[in-house]
Amino acid sequence: MTAGDALDEALAAPLVDQHCHGVRRDDLDRAAFESLITEGGPSPAGTTHFDSPVGLAVRRWCAPVLDLEPHAEPETYLARRRELGAEEVNRRLLRAAGIADFCVDTGPADATMLTPAEMGSLGDARGHEIVRIEKVAEDVAGRCPPATAYAAELAEELARRADRAVGLKTAIAYRYGFDFDPRPPTPREVTEAAARWLAGPRRLTDPVLLRHALWTGADIAGDRELPLQVHTGIGDTDLILHRVNPALLTDFIRIVPAPVVLLHCYPYIREAAYLAAVFPHVHADLGLTVTYTAASSARVIAEFLEIAPFNKILFSTDCYGLAELCHLGAHFFRRGLGAVLTERAGEWSAADVARVAHMIGAGNARRLYSL
Amino acid sequence: MTAGDALDEALAAPLVDQHCHGVRRDDLDRAAFESLITEGGPSPAGTTHFDSPVGLAVRRWCAPVLDLEPHAEPETYLARRRELGAEEVNRRLLRAAGIADFCVDTGPADATMLTPAEMGSLGDARGHEIVRIEKVAEDVAGRCPPATAYAAELAEELARRADRAVGLKTAIAYRYGFDFDPRPPTPREVTEAAARWLAGPRRLTDPVLLRHALWTGADIAGDRELPLQVHTGIGDTDLILHRVNPALLTDFIRIVPAPVVLLHCYPYIREAAYLAAVFPHVHADLGLTVTYTAASSARVIAEFLEIAPFNKILFSTDCYGLAELCHLGAHFFRRGLGAVLTERAGEWSAADVARVAHMIGAGNARRLYSL
Amino acid sequence: MTAGDALDEALAAPLVDQHCHGVRRDDLDRAAFESLITEGGPSPAGTTHFDSPVGLAVRRWCAPVLDLEPHAEPETYLARRRELGAEEVNRRLLRAAGIADFCVDTGPADATMLTPAEMGSLGDARGHEIVRIEKVAEDVAGRCPPATAYAAELAEELARRADRAVGLKTAIAYRYGFDFDPRPPTPREVTEAAARWLAGPRRLTDPVLLRHALWTGADIAGDRELPLQVHTGIGDTDLILHRVNPALLTDFIRIVPAPVVLLHCYPYIREAAYLAAVFPHVHADLGLTVTYTAASSARVIAEFLEIAPFNKILFSTDCYGLAELCHLGAHFFRRGLGAVLTERAGEWSAADVARVAHMIGAGNARRLYSL
Repeated sequence: MTAGDALDEALAAPLVDQHCHGVRRDDLDRAAFESLITEGGPSPAGTTHFDSPVGLAVRRWCAPVLDLEPHAEPETYLARRRELGAEEVNRRLLRAAGIADFCVDTGPADATMLTPAEMGSLGDARGHEIVRIEKVAEDVAGRCPPATAYAAELAEELARRADRAVGLKTAIAYRYGFDFDPRPPTPREVTEAAARWLAGPRRLTDPVLLRHALWTGADIAGDRELPLQVHTGIGDTDLILHRVNPALLTDFIRIVPAPVVLLHCYPYIREAAYLAAVFPHVHADLGLTVTYTAASSARVIAEFLEIAPFNKILFSTDCYGLAELCHLGAHFFRRGLGAVLTERAGEWSAADVARVAHMIGAGNARRLYSL
Repeated sequence: MTAGDALDEALAAPLVDQHCHGVRRDDLDRAAFESLITEGGPSPAGTTHFDSPVGLAVRRWCAPVLDLEPHAEPETYLARRRELGAEEVNRRLLRAAGIADFCVDTGPADATMLTPAEMGSLGDARGHEIVRIEKVAEDVAGRCPPATAYAAELAEELARRADRAVGLKTAIAYRYGFDFDPRPPTPREVTEAAARWLAGPRRLTDPVLLRHALWTGADIAGDRELPLQVHTGIGDTDLILHRVNPALLTDFIRIVPAPVVLLHCYPYIREAAYLAAVFPHVHADLGLTVTYTAASSARVIAEFLEIAPFNKILFSTDCYGLAELCHLGAHFFRRGLGAVLTERAGEWSAADVARVAHMIGAGNARRLYSL
Repeated sequence: MTAGDALDEALAAPLVDQHCHGVRRDDLDRAAFESLITEGGPSPAGTTHFDSPVGLAVRRWCAPVLDLEPHAEPETYLARRRELGAEEVNRRLLRAAGIADFCVDTGPADATMLTPAEMGSLGDARGHEIVRIEKVAEDVAGRCPPATAYAAELAEELARRADRAVGLKTAIAYRYGFDFDPRPPTPREVTEAAARWLAGPRRLTDPVLLRHALWTGADIAGDRELPLQVHTGIGDTDLILHRVNPALLTDFIRIVPAPVVLLHCYPYIREAAYLAAVFPHVHADLGLTVTYTAASSARVIAEFLEIAPFNKILFSTDCYGLAELCHLGAHFFRRGLGAVLTERAGEWSAADVARVAHMIGAGNARRLYSL
């Protein structure tokens, strides 16, 4: 077997998608589809979100999975999608992704989105759950407990949900940013903040309660050796980019008792790679960065690999709503990693090249999540 | 027509330079020329600013336009420049740039610099005006109005100048940075700050008055659907780089009533592309970044295109003082965009590749500025 | 001589390593060796720091210098290292680096590390000293002077050590960060802070005394025209990455009376290049960035050269403890610079390409350090 064959074989192996969301089970009109190929608002009048890296990638790489020619026009693509029906579309695209395990963040799930078990079933894979901490806090608040009971109820509910999960996730990036006091708040601070929160609307944005929920989750994760996933970098317009730089988490990372996984990270790719390089318990992936940079993703993956240790970085698609995003995430990950590793021929041995591909694509995640 | 031919044709089409300045009408000695190929101070003793990316690019790409061999020595180049005379040099270099419309920021103009009409006439193009907000504020202050009349006089003068302009521009990056309170100040705050300012020197650096001028301009821009250009990223030594990261503008962007165009953006290219991707009214260009990175500009353009939507990004040269900077900006833009789009062959259809080149080079600007 | 030959000759010329540390004179076991190929803590159970860019680079490029095949396994490599003995290993690797001058930061030196003279002798080069400001302050504090005498004793000791040095260095990045008041503290503030410090442990982390030591060093450097080196960007877990962005130094740079050299700079490469481009007294290198990015270093060097002026950037290896890091730093610097400059063929003249290689590799440092 040549070095190129060994790499191709390693890249073709099933992946562990260590962070994704459920895809939509219902058929989608153009507006709904366009809203799922962007993290932002609607495109201006006379323009379309198909004129973006991910939009052109859907036409190029997903169209053939639906039996269309590459570069199918958006209307053609969407008509074929409706013709096949969402279930068949999801089945084809999830299986085309070549993924063996989906770790599904169920935080934003509603009845239109597939469950972890359904993601596994349609995708010919196993489905696992990732518990989103802030969603659990809002669920607990929805029961209107007395403020003095909130902390205990949250700890109990998070522990209960963690029983069936492979990891926890925080979306504090969207709710506040990383410029928070890294220490847990005192019980008194929590009770006072809970009293204010429970009297008003249920979206959790109070920094004291966000820190408290994060620490409650981190302690449970630490006790059970479950990874704590942290959304970092780009996302929707709820976040402020410079406040979600993972370097801002340094003081928290120094004291958190659980393994940490930095997600997405764009444009703070090098910051995330650095943290993974120097802190033994920090890991990172590129998640939605690979999908959204699409044809440019090889450049981004190459940048991630500049200083990141090969035993601390992971693969994920962060697909949300659309199975297309899962297929594209896996496609561009394999292609980008392949391009970087092909450049390493001669620089590294063929065996090391293949070994690194296996580690990043699945091995590190299997070790970290005990899959 | 092959795919390559279609791209070449699209790249050769006339560009819209959506942000530039007037070039000098007078002949320049070496010191004056060197001071215009840097954003910084003088080069240390025994060194020259020609030993920089833009300096070597002038010798390579501008020398032939003046009938010299490529790589002409600096003294040879400057002697030929004086021999031809500034008007002929400007005519040759501006026309070589292949630009159909110049949108000229007249803020820093003095009698040595060409007007928008002259830029158009010498460059075989149309000239349009961009009004620099802080310059108008300083002009109004120069009339020494009572502090209580300042706000009304500024609004009136800005509105009057906007009548003949295609957009407004803020240089708050140079005067303060982006870490300002995003809301407009109260009338009382403005009057008090104006009283202090009007008693002293006329350079506008007071953060209350900067915010007030910015909001006055933004409201006029919003009323007339004129774009508001914002200098971001690198520039001269008046600015502090980490305080001109466009991500710091997020809260302002959320409430500003006008289309926003982020200019230059280096090194915050990905931050700018992200803002353009998620906020429907945000656009961005690379401006002086392309000129100053010169032979490296393809890498920078590729980075810009990682996540930027193709319908929200623009071309400009930001040429200032020297027609060389206009020619180089257009040359490196076409070359860099061509390199990126050539890599997309197969990934995108030939028609899409050509369409994207047209959008970025001129189409988006024609839509945005109603040219 | 062809253009390629001229470039090859320029790249093969002896380098000036303008910032390094002593390498260890003793034989190293695997744990000690692994701790020196990372800036971070131990690798997690079941993993090894050899699975990193620098780890694979040691196996590829250092193994042949010790008569092993490329890609030797870690155990094979370390056994051969012990067989040859540290002195022979150091001699071979330092000489393989092709360096004419080592400028050695003696701040962290203990008896196990080679002195500047020994680095020169083993490496067939000249050894020079760089004085680390904070180490001198701690040495002075170790004498337990009265608080009122501390400032004078520090100034005297720093001046004495500067007599035999070619430059000074600050590690304030590790002790505090760059978000300090850029002005020197008052004598009274210094005495008060010294009284507190001298009563406790000796590690210098007080921001008043750090600023005072920095200014004491900067004034001495300014008087003698010695460069002031500043660690910026990545390093060990003592630092917080976003607080060591060199852009945070802008206000200090505006008033510091000495030449400044920004070291390492990753991931703030473009920020450093910008500062070197606009401030006449600012220089920069990539130092440990090149070693630690290893096979990716050409990309990083290319990024550095986007806007950096060619007369203001320098070479260093930042080797620390291991002669391998010196060899790798020189190897990847030559290879990466060669790759960038090869791309410039046609864009720049062959003479300019070779001249730029000489400037960056040695010429600029000879001018700056008067070597």
